[in-house]
Amino acid sequence: MSLNNRRQSLSLEEYVEGVKANNRAVLARAITLVESNAARHMTLAQELLTSIMPDTGESIRIGITGVPGAGKSTFIESFGMMLCEKGHRVAVLAVDPSSSLSHGSILGDKTRMEQLSRHRGAFVRPSPAGGALGGVARKTRETMLLCEAAGYDIIIVETVGVGQSEVSVRSMVDCYLVLMLTGAGDDLQGMKKGMMEMVDMMLINKADGTNIHAANQAKIELRRIVHMLPRMTNGWETKVQTVSSLTGNGMKECWETVEQFYTHLVKTKQFDERRKKQAANWFHSLIEEQLLSSFYESGIIKRELPQLKQSVLDGKVSATQAALALLKKYQGNN
Amino acid sequence: MSLNNRRQSLSLEEYVEGVKANNRAVLARAITLVESNAARHMTLAQELLTSIMPDTGESIRIGITGVPGAGKSTFIESFGMMLCEKGHRVAVLAVDPSSSLSHGSILGDKTRMEQLSRHRGAFVRPSPAGGALGGVARKTRETMLLCEAAGYDIIIVETVGVGQSEVSVRSMVDCYLVLMLTGAGDDLQGMKKGMMEMVDMMLINKADGTNIHAANQAKIELRRIVHMLPRMTNGWETKVQTVSSLTGNGMKECWETVEQFYTHLVKTKQFDERRKKQAANWFHSLIEEQLLSSFYESGIIKRELPQLKQSVLDGKVSATQAALALLKKYQGNN
Repeated sequence: MSLNNRRQSLSLEEYVEGVKANNRAVLARAITLVESNAARHMTLAQELLTSIMPDTGESIRIGITGVPGAGKSTFIESFGMMLCEKGHRVAVLAVDPSSSLSHGSILGDKTRMEQLSRHRGAFVRPSPAGGALGGVARKTRETMLLCEAAGYDIIIVETVGVGQSEVSVRSMVDCYLVLMLTGAGDDLQGMKKGMMEMVDMMLINKADGTNIHAANQAKIELRRIVHMLPRMTNGWETKVQTVSSLTGNGMKECWETVEQFYTHLVKTKQFDERRKKQAANWFHSLIEEQLLSSFYESGIIKRELPQLKQSVLDGKVSATQAALALLKKYQGNN
Repeated sequence: MSLNNRRQSLSLEEYVEGVKANNRAVLARAITLVESNAARHMTLAQELLTSIMPDTGESIRIGITGVPGAGKSTFIESFGMMLCEKGHRVAVLAVDPSSSLSHGSILGDKTRMEQLSRHRGAFVRPSPAGGALGGVARKTRETMLLCEAAGYDIIIVETVGVGQSEVSVRSMVDCYLVLMLTGAGDDLQGMKKGMMEMVDMMLINKADGTNIHAANQAKIELRRIVHMLPRMTNGWETKVQTVSSLTGNGMKECWETVEQFYTHLVKTKQFDERRKKQAANWFHSLIEEQLLSSFYESGIIKRELPQLKQSVLDGKVSATQAALALLKKYQGNN
């Protein structure tokens, strides 16, 4: 199998063996296959995923979010390096729904995570572009499975926090961290609604130099708040810690908390439960998304919807009557 | 038109005129028509709604939620009586998704809101049962329109906070209040995730007798928290106030806040914007719900789904492959 010639296509067996052997070139091509929006790639991609399925699911899946400027990539580089040095194999994926416009704004910059990208224990993959059936979320999930089959035992999924991406990432990870800055109040204002109740851990980043005092203050304040809010995970109060990607302070404690959290999930049987629930939800959301896009993309609906919707907005017709009329047309046409 | 004979059916014109004239017996029958799950009632109900559409939209729509025991119905009775005495006409509706099981647990008890129910300025309607197309949410929305056409200028929608009912109520009201008890921390733990960022106003109820001090403490604490959280309404920080349905303390202030809020919405042009957005979302959710229920209720999907889903949960097949297989079967069969 010549991997120098990138145009040469691989067979299913070559993909499966290459991924399982953690041949990085094959893994990268397998991810490209899964990311492809071409119908002819879809079948092979799904056969590949089904073949590697028994080798998936064994990693710790960690989601990381935070407002722009919170220092996510610097944190991931530092955190990932520490994990690699402990002997872990770390894959970093990104969910960036804006990437189809910006051509991969969050990991596209090649200077980001430079050190980690070069580490032989790490695999860093930029954000895929959108497209049909599940879009970025499907591609990221399936890439996660490929990385697991390739033996990565820690998968970090980064999100820029645009649109629905935080909810989407929450639904594919075990443990979800938000990176924050000091000045908690202002920072929280910029957070998505419900975000605080979606995470398992809050990290106040850049706790170094003259910023240490403010970071500790923010920690105390945030602990008071999370103590009162509903929890994401039964029996687990959202942990609030400080960290510095610059000095490495708090980095070890961050990993210890992830490990404690993982132990808690397993011990309370929430781990399998959460994974199963996520798989079921994912299955249903793929179906539902496809049903809805077939509807909205059909010729008759594209023609008829705008005017009917306007009549609803103008209060000329009840929403129910308009919806019933549209559904009737669609069914008659299908 | 003899209303003594309830079995005699009314014509569209009789319904329209009766509702607009606020003939309470006709209004009650119109609501029953809208609530009916029978296909033969649906057409007439939708004609009725389209006919009255120009007379709708002029009320202040207030949602009220809170955990069981927070004193919602006692509060609504006291609040509603005060509004009636100010010359307002108040309709109280309920969204209780459990009512199809419990036969209307939240307003079914006839002793609740006894005083308000008898007031000639008020109209109290128990929760409808579920059923097809939009279920309880559709029925409550359409009942709201009927009440507006009948001249009620304040509509209060109460929810028990089970399942998706809070989100559902948020999407049909202008202003959303949550009733709480003292001991804010414990109370917040029992709240649905994201709830605090969904409301415009928090009322600490039962602020009377020996409870006043604790209620004031809770108010201070909650104000600190909401100050930090993302806001539901641009430029409006969630108000936190105390109230007593027993002594009436804070009741007047509660209404003043609703009025301030309403003024804020109108002045910042968020009022029309919110109403239009709600109408559009509602239109789409009716369509989408119907598309999905057609899918899940079809014979082939009922037969094929359980096993395919199990294969996904067992990690035997990728979610995407299973979803594609199911969609193909559905489309081939449709």
